[in-house]
Amino acid sequence: MTSQSENPVKQDTLPESYDRAEDKLIYLQRLVADKDLSTMAEFLNDQSEYEIASLLESFPHDSRQLIWEQVPVALKGQVLAEVVDDIRPSLMENMQAEEIETLAEDLDAQDIAEILDTVDDKVRSEVMSNLDEEIRQQVSQLNTYEEYEVGDYMDPDTIQIQGNITLEQVQNWLRQDEDLLDDETQELIVVDASHQLLGLLSLVDLIKYPQQSLVEQWIDPAITINDRMDIQDAAAVFRSSDIRYAPVVNSFGELVGQLNAEDIMEIIQDDVDSTMKHLAGVSDDEELFAPILRSAKSRSVWLGINLLTALLAAAVIGQFEEVLAQVVALAVLMPVVASMGGISGSQTLTVVIRGLAMGQIGGSNRLWLMNKELWVGAINGVIWAVIMAAIAQLWFHDPKISLVIGCAIAINMTAANVAGIGIPLFLKRLDIDPALSASVILTTVTDIVGFMSFLGLASLLIL
Amino acid sequence: MTSQSENPVKQDTLPESYDRAEDKLIYLQRLVADKDLSTMAEFLNDQSEYEIASLLESFPHDSRQLIWEQVPVALKGQVLAEVVDDIRPSLMENMQAEEIETLAEDLDAQDIAEILDTVDDKVRSEVMSNLDEEIRQQVSQLNTYEEYEVGDYMDPDTIQIQGNITLEQVQNWLRQDEDLLDDETQELIVVDASHQLLGLLSLVDLIKYPQQSLVEQWIDPAITINDRMDIQDAAAVFRSSDIRYAPVVNSFGELVGQLNAEDIMEIIQDDVDSTMKHLAGVSDDEELFAPILRSAKSRSVWLGINLLTALLAAAVIGQFEEVLAQVVALAVLMPVVASMGGISGSQTLTVVIRGLAMGQIGGSNRLWLMNKELWVGAINGVIWAVIMAAIAQLWFHDPKISLVIGCAIAINMTAANVAGIGIPLFLKRLDIDPALSASVILTTVTDIVGFMSFLGLASLLIL
Repeated sequence: MTSQSENPVKQDTLPESYDRAEDKLIYLQRLVADKDLSTMAEFLNDQSEYEIASLLESFPHDSRQLIWEQVPVALKGQVLAEVVDDIRPSLMENMQAEEIETLAEDLDAQDIAEILDTVDDKVRSEVMSNLDEEIRQQVSQLNTYEEYEVGDYMDPDTIQIQGNITLEQVQNWLRQDEDLLDDETQELIVVDASHQLLGLLSLVDLIKYPQQSLVEQWIDPAITINDRMDIQDAAAVFRSSDIRYAPVVNSFGELVGQLNAEDIMEIIQDDVDSTMKHLAGVSDDEELFAPILRSAKSRSVWLGINLLTALLAAAVIGQFEEVLAQVVALAVLMPVVASMGGISGSQTLTVVIRGLAMGQIGGSNRLWLMNKELWVGAINGVIWAVIMAAIAQLWFHDPKISLVIGCAIAINMTAANVAGIGIPLFLKRLDIDPALSASVILTTVTDIVGFMSFLGLASLLIL
Repeated sequence: MTSQSENPVKQDTLPESYDRAEDKLIYLQRLVADKDLSTMAEFLNDQSEYEIASLLESFPHDSRQLIWEQVPVALKGQVLAEVVDDIRPSLMENMQAEEIETLAEDLDAQDIAEILDTVDDKVRSEVMSNLDEEIRQQVSQLNTYEEYEVGDYMDPDTIQIQGNITLEQVQNWLRQDEDLLDDETQELIVVDASHQLLGLLSLVDLIKYPQQSLVEQWIDPAITINDRMDIQDAAAVFRSSDIRYAPVVNSFGELVGQLNAEDIMEIIQDDVDSTMKHLAGVSDDEELFAPILRSAKSRSVWLGINLLTALLAAAVIGQFEEVLAQVVALAVLMPVVASMGGISGSQTLTVVIRGLAMGQIGGSNRLWLMNKELWVGAINGVIWAVIMAAIAQLWFHDPKISLVIGCAIAINMTAANVAGIGIPLFLKRLDIDPALSASVILTTVTDIVGFMSFLGLASLLIL
């Protein structure tokens, strides 16, 4: 709990805690503006590595470099391991191999591997060659994992005990080396003589059961996770089984590390972040304070795709120039049809993407949901069709136009809801992340169906 | 770790674990279709309360009732506490007070309070009057909290020890009553003789330090959370301080409960869910398998608001009927302008809402970000303006139209980005959740600015 001990909060300031992050940010902004480096160093010395990382992420490049220079050397390694991937290179740009070696002395293999991902091969091998033999092996092992694999997130330091000793013996052994148990430890891994996993012994059980009894009496079965598994899938296992801890094994069934609830919390946070960003067409690694040109570039892809779909919709409208030229009211009302379909469809899309992520959609309930969304779309479609037809009648006094917009809204909202479930289910079957592309496909569908039904019906009825 | 022990997973089936939830769902769907009640009861008996809750949430009402009747009575209480709020009433609709009392016997105060929220006052007081005195007091205490307050989420059962005893004494005391430590315990709370909080002793420290030393030597300072604090704010404290556990105190500084990382994980999950739903205009409590009419109704509000904004946009277009009647190409290209602005603005909106949630936006960086987004919008605006002008030229061979659409896209994308940061910052200042209404306001802005600049410029240049 070292991060706590640096920032004890007085009880009387508590209701304001939420704003503390912002207060600290504003205070640091003032120090940066005043170039008050000594106060800055003092202030940073009082913050935990998590707070410093978050503060660094809240400044644009130049101020960030200034602050970074004032971070106490003893914290730099942990802060580096903590910051988001995008800004680590800029913090490390002037670091020499020796400097990195010094930082690495206080870090565990997981953090070192994270930091070494950023440096070039020459520096990396120089740093690696000076590491402890045990740490070096762990780091090279961690380096073999892809960034989406469980192995890249696991803690390789597990505590293993045998089943045939007493709880008292376990406690005495743990007490011999203070570094054995770290603050995050909740579970010990029980193995047999040939290092095969037997299960878990929790610290709770280690304390509460008779100390002369044997470990094997109190073993809890473990849900193990494979080191090559996708980390998102591992998060789903944690969620569906409500576990807080899992040993990680390789494909030979050998124990290689552990995952705990805090690691998974980060993953869930990241996952949700990226789902939200994907739905809005922002790339995963766009950082809030990225330079203007980098942000502009990273958002271009999605804008380009959107232009293509908007042109497709325009081409549909282009097919109906004749009726548009005759009845200008159609041009006025046209966007309403597309917009109602778009909202209705994305309501469906959002609940479906959430249901897919929770594993609640599958088998025969897909058809049930498809049918449900069809009816929700049709019912709301008819209701809003009637309302919109009435408004159009009051506005343009032309029953044909009112009829056309009513029918088009009913058709488009029904189609939108079916597309809102059909598109993500189809993408999932193709193994494409629905959050990434479903919303742009949906908009294309609702624009095209909307314009086509509205202007098509108008051509039939009015021309 | 009881939830684990019921579902040990063989190592060789592991890479498929992600699909296990779906496999179980499909299996249960088959049993429901076959009305095979005895196999269903057997299957459910092998699942944890979390899995049963998730499965119940994955069925429409009628099948859900059928499954619920086969859930083993011993698990029903915990399943009820676990399911989402929306479906609890339907599961409890035929329950008598005695039945609820039986279920309550295995539950802690937190779960009982949750379940009693669903029943009417008569049943509630009947159940309450038959509870253990200690549990009854805890439940009535929990009932005083609003659903957004920390108190509604905390666990009232804390373990308190004094600072002036040895670690060995603590361990011996914990061993006297097996029920004292539960599986989730990670920290003991150290108090002085007058029950004032001194700090925490972790189970890790309890094991690893010399057993003859005093508790007070190893106390970690605690970050306490106020029981009336908004649970979202508490989650922000957990995140920014990277703590896993916090004692909860009331306004008199008295210890009333505890919050741990798992509680917070759920909150973060729920928070993100509701941000995603709000951005898409779906209400918080819409459940995937809700009946058609309930879903249709809950989505209506947003559709109505959207209709108003779409009509506003239509009214803007209506101001330009004259130019639209003369140049029908404008009606064809019009949606492209609105669409490019909409996407660009919601890219900005998404990163800003995320930054606000992380507490990284405040003070002077608001201006920096506003300036940045202005430039990102302007740069991308000019680039896509040139591209779109070229396309329009190839399509309609009219330099005036090409000029108009180019200018309109550049203007709208720049305005969209400024609105994408300005709207959430403004809403936050008014203490309105930006996720809830920012996206509809943004769409209104990008539609109106888009149509007005496009058709306005066309009127000036072409008429």
